Amino acid sequence: MKKVVALVHEIFEDLELMYPVIRMQEGGLEVVIAGEEKGKTYHGKHGYPCKSDVSFSDIEEDQFSAVLIPGGFAPDKLRRLPDVIHIVQEMDRAKKVIAFICHGGWVPISAKILKGKKVTGTTAIKDDLENAGAIWEDQELVIDGHLISSRTPADLPVFGKAIVEALS
Amino acid sequence: MKKVVALVHEIFEDLELMYPVIRMQEGGLEVVIAGEEKGKTYHGKHGYPCKSDVSFSDIEEDQFSAVLIPGGFAPDKLRRLPDVIHIVQEMDRAKKVIAFICHGGWVPISAKILKGKKVTGTTAIKDDLENAGAIWEDQELVIDGHLISSRTPADLPVFGKAIVEALS
Repeated sequence: MKKVVALVHEIFEDLELMYPVIRMQEGGLEVVIAGEEKGKTYHGKHGYPCKSDVSFSDIEEDQFSAVLIPGGFAPDKLRRLPDVIHIVQEMDRAKKVIAFICHGGWVPISAKILKGKKVTGTTAIKDDLENAGAIWEDQELVIDGHLISSRTPADLPVFGKAIVEALS
Repeated sequence: MKKVVALVHEIFEDLELMYPVIRMQEGGLEVVIAGEEKGKTYHGKHGYPCKSDVSFSDIEEDQFSAVLIPGGFAPDKLRRLPDVIHIVQEMDRAKKVIAFICHGGWVPISAKILKGKKVTGTTAIKDDLENAGAIWEDQELVIDGHLISSRTPADLPVFGKAIVEALS
């Protein structure tokens, strides 16, 4: 069974984390929720709770096939953490799936892995993505190699399916 | 494209409504959100917003292939509304899919359609389901003819898939 690490922090966009997590479980993938602290309950922008299974420092990248980065304002916290940047950079080096949606793109920006890559994300961070060297496209789903991205919760039907298909 | 009506009211269980809705959209189904008022934003138990597309009285049952009834405490409101009971009874008469999860079972109880039927739901309403003549099973998914039921948010991976498969 392939394993996916989903990154959580306070003010994650509730559905942008939870929909892909449950969709991946439906697709037979094991999902591990990683937070700054192990066993802590974080809350979404609208209040949904999500408890971390492990801490970022517990993650051994070679055990995982993909990383999921939700939107909301959690990415504003996540991008500052060296352990998170390390996870994303190692997954990128190994060409493993890196899936991000909405404001999630801030994390791969800070991991400095987007130069020349086609991506999407909320229009709020279009400038940040382009200034990081990425090519922003106004599409519900953009796939460039191992990078999978979408714009908003309205894109979740295609985002969740694309992640599961990429890991099948 | 097949159409599904999803019932909403205050204090719906956020993921029990939104996960199946998005999963059905992924599966190519058109989902219409129906509330007591059209165009009103209802809030989940944890705060997620969901705006109704139509009111219950707007629903023409022959236009729909299925009804979704989420849990939380929304079903406590829904079961008192004659328009809701009418929708569920008409869908039952036509053997169309009736999917309910967690406390959602309160609605088919009040529609009086469960006698002799195998169902599941949260243990909190096991007695109510049994007193209504249903046979409660402790399974993540129970399908009896056109009735599809699950227990809790943890069952969503199989619940969402089962609804989409039943309508494919």
